[in-house]
Amino acid sequence: MIPAELIKRKRDGLSLPREDLKQFIQDYVNGTVTDYQMAALLMAIYFNGMTDDELFSLVEIMLNSGERMDFSHLDSYVADKHSTGGVGDKVSIILGPLLAAAGLAIPMISGRSLGHTGGTLDKLETIPGFQVDVSLAEFKRLVETVGIAMIGQTSEICPADKKMYALRDVTGTVESIPLICGSIMSKKIAEGIRGLVLDVKVGNGAFMKNYHDAQRLGNMLQRVGRAFDVTTDVVYTSMNQPLGRTAGLWCEVNEAIEALKGDGPEDLLTVTFELGARLLMQAGKGNNRDEAIDLQKELIRSGKAYETFLNMVAAQHGRPDEVERHASLHQPRHKTAVQANRSGTITKMDTYHIGLATVELGSGRKKTTDRLDPTAGIEFLRKIGDEVQTGETLFYCFNSDQRKLQSALRILEETVTIEDSPANHRLILSKA
Amino acid sequence: MIPAELIKRKRDGLSLPREDLKQFIQDYVNGTVTDYQMAALLMAIYFNGMTDDELFSLVEIMLNSGERMDFSHLDSYVADKHSTGGVGDKVSIILGPLLAAAGLAIPMISGRSLGHTGGTLDKLETIPGFQVDVSLAEFKRLVETVGIAMIGQTSEICPADKKMYALRDVTGTVESIPLICGSIMSKKIAEGIRGLVLDVKVGNGAFMKNYHDAQRLGNMLQRVGRAFDVTTDVVYTSMNQPLGRTAGLWCEVNEAIEALKGDGPEDLLTVTFELGARLLMQAGKGNNRDEAIDLQKELIRSGKAYETFLNMVAAQHGRPDEVERHASLHQPRHKTAVQANRSGTITKMDTYHIGLATVELGSGRKKTTDRLDPTAGIEFLRKIGDEVQTGETLFYCFNSDQRKLQSALRILEETVTIEDSPANHRLILSKA
Repeated sequence: MIPAELIKRKRDGLSLPREDLKQFIQDYVNGTVTDYQMAALLMAIYFNGMTDDELFSLVEIMLNSGERMDFSHLDSYVADKHSTGGVGDKVSIILGPLLAAAGLAIPMISGRSLGHTGGTLDKLETIPGFQVDVSLAEFKRLVETVGIAMIGQTSEICPADKKMYALRDVTGTVESIPLICGSIMSKKIAEGIRGLVLDVKVGNGAFMKNYHDAQRLGNMLQRVGRAFDVTTDVVYTSMNQPLGRTAGLWCEVNEAIEALKGDGPEDLLTVTFELGARLLMQAGKGNNRDEAIDLQKELIRSGKAYETFLNMVAAQHGRPDEVERHASLHQPRHKTAVQANRSGTITKMDTYHIGLATVELGSGRKKTTDRLDPTAGIEFLRKIGDEVQTGETLFYCFNSDQRKLQSALRILEETVTIEDSPANHRLILSKA
Repeated sequence: MIPAELIKRKRDGLSLPREDLKQFIQDYVNGTVTDYQMAALLMAIYFNGMTDDELFSLVEIMLNSGERMDFSHLDSYVADKHSTGGVGDKVSIILGPLLAAAGLAIPMISGRSLGHTGGTLDKLETIPGFQVDVSLAEFKRLVETVGIAMIGQTSEICPADKKMYALRDVTGTVESIPLICGSIMSKKIAEGIRGLVLDVKVGNGAFMKNYHDAQRLGNMLQRVGRAFDVTTDVVYTSMNQPLGRTAGLWCEVNEAIEALKGDGPEDLLTVTFELGARLLMQAGKGNNRDEAIDLQKELIRSGKAYETFLNMVAAQHGRPDEVERHASLHQPRHKTAVQANRSGTITKMDTYHIGLATVELGSGRKKTTDRLDPTAGIEFLRKIGDEVQTGETLFYCFNSDQRKLQSALRILEETVTIEDSPANHRLILSKA
């Protein structure tokens, strides 16, 4: 395998022999193939894609580059949920404990905020004391005893992916469907799960702007799942507006807690239950979707889901007493209301710019060294389909840094479209 | 200018702001932009091309990265010739001295063998004592006194190009028309020339396989020439068979000497005179093509062209006495004749594989550390259009390494097509 020749093959749209690609990636991990050769290959992949065979090789090498967890000794159905990223998406924080309460084992490795989208880890870390940096041995013990643990990526899981992702980030090669797919699936498969449900976000606040691209990704994710014996369901949900009532850090955790205590907004619960139903059915809990959704409602009503959440918090060194006073925690120093400048129906929300505004407020990072502001976020009083009057408050914008607040408000200008025509919005697009 | 953002713009087919591209390349030269970011940009350029404005910026930065020669104090017309590379192409060795004999000043910086194509420097170095590594000050003095010097690329001329070319070589990004164009033109413009003629090779032994691609390159080269005030003519010539009687190292120098002494093969002289005529007309020597061609014939007939060649050899520490006994120099230890296996007309020659066979014989390098064999080469007795009988010798293959000779003969199998139909071959395709 001559690296430059392999790059040329991909550049010219030819398929790569399995063993050659493996060699290239392995040599990259051990340093024989250089960063610049991998960067050139990644850009060629961006343009010419990957065959399934190439993608499976990529996933296999990423898996073999590190530890692969094993939960086969457990009776519980071991599963995870993953979202391709959005604004206001706090589903994991609700669904993880909910599924653990249903008897599933959930070894969830999550990510940080990325671009305009929020990150589960950054949100969880606003819980006083909560630790997401946990050794794999401890992670395993938590899953076995509490039924769930939510941690950050460790250097033991798919180090090849970590190295490649860092390179993609600085070489303009993040937005490649097969590379995104390989990165997601290798990390999930390494968790040792039997089942997986993927929330593929589609819309103006998602990485996939249209259903066609989302489906390409979704189908590819399922083919990888099948190749590695992980039962994989996909739900396509809209990211044409933020999910739920809030987008930010603590405000989202607070909303997730409210949802676990029985007071979640409808759209957030719909997505949560839809995803949860897929895994419950995989696990043989509930004969059909309706039963699986009812089971989840009951686990919230009974308090079991919230109890499991508190157990998880305690197990990961968080303080349940602080969680209990959630409504008064992390109060922002500054808060501004933004009003409707005309009457009509909200027909569109520019979710990408709303996401960028949350980053500007302090909920995300523009560079890796940026410090986050747990008090920062946006609360939406009105969303698509709602009728509003001139002067009525559309959303609150808040944080503890006046300058950043002003700059976020400028980004938020004209992100909400009010028209006379009725709105057209569908939350669950399809399932596979 | 954020490097990853600039890469993404090119990746997405958007044009790059002039200042941003300049910054990126300058930062690459000084090490702030990394090899892997440049590799990703180069691959994106491979797929999405460059605008003229981007290309001019690239050339400008390459020029500014090193020394730029100045011959404006000379009365002579300062000019150069460049070929995009072929098999058996020894035109520079004839045309350089010929034009110097006509009173032009020729500061020629040439290259080494590349892929399947020969390199002028490697050929010149088979002249006993001949030095191609010459300081820029010495180079200048030689051009001023002898009228010509033929040297290798120095680290003072376009170091940015050198750095980028080395990266392209190992990242599968050599074959990009704008990058090829930028690399050629920056080095030629740095020579301080007023005029340039480009021999753009087209055919199965050239980098450009078809006339359409060749024209894209030729037009681009001319636009860059115009932008930097270098009068630039282009001649498109066929590389569907080797040029002249030989391909290799010393055998090509020997053929060039024979041509300078009045015994050159017709196709070689046709290309040489066609290119020479363009520069002579640029310089105001000869009122039209016919006059310019006659002038060249006269300079050969009178011995002035060969005399200038000997002067150049002597000035660059070569030994004119060795040149004088050229026919007996560098005799190969092994020589094999290859015969026609049927009667008919030669209709095709697979020039790419013939070029690869010369590399295998020892006339070119497969890796930079390979040692060349001055005795190696191929002599063609018959070429396209010739009628041959079964058993008649088509070419001789020779060198001083029996094993390599055998392996070259295997590459040469079926490189000559003999058919009953007449052949169709045109040498000069067009001029611009």
